Amino acid sequence: MKKPNVAVVGVGAVGIEMVRMLKERKFPFSSLRLFARSQRQMNIEGENYQVEVISPQVFSNIDIALFAGTEGEKGAAVTYAPAAVKAGAVVIDNGADFRLQDNVPLIVPEVNKDKIITHRGIIANPNCTTIQMVVALGEIYRRFGLKKVVLTSFQAASGAGRRAIQELRQEALSFCQGSEEKGEFSPLMAKVDFNQEIFSRQLLFNVVPQIGSFKEEGFTTEEIKVVRETHKIFSDESIKIAATCVRVPVFVSHSEAIYFSTKTSTTIEDIENALAQTAGVKFFPAAEDFPTALDAAQREEVFAGRLRRGAEESTYWIWVVADNLLKGAALNAVQIAEELLKN
Amino acid sequence: MKKPNVAVVGVGAVGIEMVRMLKERKFPFSSLRLFARSQRQMNIEGENYQVEVISPQVFSNIDIALFAGTEGEKGAAVTYAPAAVKAGAVVIDNGADFRLQDNVPLIVPEVNKDKIITHRGIIANPNCTTIQMVVALGEIYRRFGLKKVVLTSFQAASGAGRRAIQELRQEALSFCQGSEEKGEFSPLMAKVDFNQEIFSRQLLFNVVPQIGSFKEEGFTTEEIKVVRETHKIFSDESIKIAATCVRVPVFVSHSEAIYFSTKTSTTIEDIENALAQTAGVKFFPAAEDFPTALDAAQREEVFAGRLRRGAEESTYWIWVVADNLLKGAALNAVQIAEELLKN
Repeated sequence: MKKPNVAVVGVGAVGIEMVRMLKERKFPFSSLRLFARSQRQMNIEGENYQVEVISPQVFSNIDIALFAGTEGEKGAAVTYAPAAVKAGAVVIDNGADFRLQDNVPLIVPEVNKDKIITHRGIIANPNCTTIQMVVALGEIYRRFGLKKVVLTSFQAASGAGRRAIQELRQEALSFCQGSEEKGEFSPLMAKVDFNQEIFSRQLLFNVVPQIGSFKEEGFTTEEIKVVRETHKIFSDESIKIAATCVRVPVFVSHSEAIYFSTKTSTTIEDIENALAQTAGVKFFPAAEDFPTALDAAQREEVFAGRLRRGAEESTYWIWVVADNLLKGAALNAVQIAEELLKN
Repeated sequence: MKKPNVAVVGVGAVGIEMVRMLKERKFPFSSLRLFARSQRQMNIEGENYQVEVISPQVFSNIDIALFAGTEGEKGAAVTYAPAAVKAGAVVIDNGADFRLQDNVPLIVPEVNKDKIITHRGIIANPNCTTIQMVVALGEIYRRFGLKKVVLTSFQAASGAGRRAIQELRQEALSFCQGSEEKGEFSPLMAKVDFNQEIFSRQLLFNVVPQIGSFKEEGFTTEEIKVVRETHKIFSDESIKIAATCVRVPVFVSHSEAIYFSTKTSTTIEDIENALAQTAGVKFFPAAEDFPTALDAAQREEVFAGRLRRGAEESTYWIWVVADNLLKGAALNAVQIAEELLKN
C-alpha cells in the first residue's frame, strides 16, 4: 500500500484519541482529515485541525476511514460506511453496528489479526470491555482453551463519551461546593444536587450496574456485547461467558475482575507463564503490585495482576485494567490500520 | 432477661451507628454507657454522651457489651472481652478476632440465630461483606443448597473507619481546588495532590483491588474472611467460594456482584420466589429498578436486584447492596442483642 490518505470520523473522546494515536505511533499517512457533523477548528496536542462536515462524497480520496463510533446509539458508520467502501476506502469502525455481521471481521490484533484479510471494506473494532478481556486471556486461550469466563467490570465514565466525563466532573464540583462548611461528614452528604443527563443515577460516590440499556432477560446491551463479541473474536461459541457490567466514578480506564476456567487441566504456574508471554499485556506477578485505573490512563498496555486460584479446578482470578479510550478503542483501531498497511 | 445494662466499646464509624441503632430500634436497655481509649464528650443525633475510659473493671455492672471492633488490626475485644465475660457480660464483637473460634457462634440472625444459645460469653458479628451476601443467599441456600459462590465486591471507604471517610472527602476537595480554572478535562487531572494514609492508592476516581493485607497465595485478608465466615455461618464447607474484594470511591454501602450455583436443579422463577421471601431482603424484580450504594445508605434492608441467568446450569447473577455500617456491622450486632433478650 502506498502512504494512505486517512480520515477520522467523529471528534469526541475516542476521535481525539485516534488522532493522537496516529501521530504518536507515527502512522505513515499521506494526509489526515477530520470529519464531524459540523465544521469547526480544533486543537489536539498543540496542533490545529480543520474539522470538515461529513457527507457521503468526502471519501473519494480516502484510503482508510477510522470511525470513532458511538456507544449506545447508531454510529455515523451506518450512514456513511457504504459510501466510503464504494469509494474504495477501508472502514475501521469503533461503533457497535457492524461487529456481529458475518462478512465483517471483528479484530483485536494480538488475538486474531489473521482474520483482517477477510474484510469486504469494513473491519469492526470490538467493545472496550471485550478488547481488554480477550487480550488478557488471548495466550491462555491459545494454550489451554477456555471453558468459562465470568466477568465483573468496573467501567469508567469516559466510555459514555465526553459529556459523561463532564457530568462526573460537575458532580464532583457540586459536592465540593460548601462542603468545607458542612463540618462532620454524614453519609447523606454524598448525594449531590445535580441533574444527571447521561447516567441514570448519580455516579459520583456511587456504583451503577447499568451500561447501555436493558434487553432480554434483564441483561444490558453491554453485557450481551461482551458475550457475543468474545465468541466471535475467538471463533468459539463453546466458551460459557457471563458478565455483570458496572459503571464506577472513574474518568478513564476500565477494571475487570475475571474468573475463568481453562479447558485443559492447568496449574497456576501455567497461567503465570502464559500471562508473562501474552502480547500486549504487562503482567504483575506480585500481589501488592496490582494495577489500578489511574495507573493505566493514557497507557497503551493491558495491565494484569492479582492472579489467584479460584474455587474450582483449573479456575483462576485475574485483575485486568486498560485505558478504555486507547486499547479499548482508538489504539486498537489504529493497530488494525497498521496491520492493513502490512498486508 | 431483665432490662439490660448495655455498653458500646469504641466510638468510631461503627460505634456511633451502634448507639444510633439501639436508640432507633428502641432497644430496652436499663442504661447505656460508651467506652473508648480516652475520655470525651460526644453528641450523637442531638444527645450528649460522656465517653468513659475503657478498662477491665468497667464491666462489673454490664449485661451486654457491644464491641465496635476494628477491621485490619486487633480489636479492643482481644484485650477486654475476657474481663467482660468474667464479670458476667455477654460480648457481641464486631471485630475479626473471635469469629472463627470454635466456641464462638458467628451470627447473622436471618440465617443462623439458632446458634446464639451455644455462646460461652462471646458472640461474633461477621465481616460486612459476608453479612449482606449470606442474607441475600440465605433462603436460596435453605431451599436449594449452594454449590458455588463467586463474589466481586465494590466496597465503601467507611469500611476502613472514620479516617478513611475523611481521606476520600479530602481527595475530593483537593480535586476541586482550582479545577474550574483548568479548563478542558484531561485524564491526568484525575490524579490529586494528596498524601494517602489509609488506602494504598488514591481512591477518588479509582478502584483499588485491595481490602486488608495480602496473605497466602495472593489473597487479601478480606477475601479469606468471606470464604471462611460464609462456610461457618452456613455450617457447610462444601460450598465453593471465591472472592475478589475491591475498594471503590463510595462513602457508605457495599455493592456485590454475586454469581452462584444452586446444589439442586433450579429455574430462575425458583430463585425469584426465594428472594421475594427472604427475611431482611428487599428484592427488585424489574431490571431497571436496581439498587445502588447511595440508595442503601442509612437503610436497614439488604437490597437485591438484577437477577439473571448465568452461563452454567442452575447458575445466576444477583446484585446485592447494603449499608456496611448498619446491616454490615452495627445493626446486625444490635439484632443479635435483640435475639439474646428473647432467649
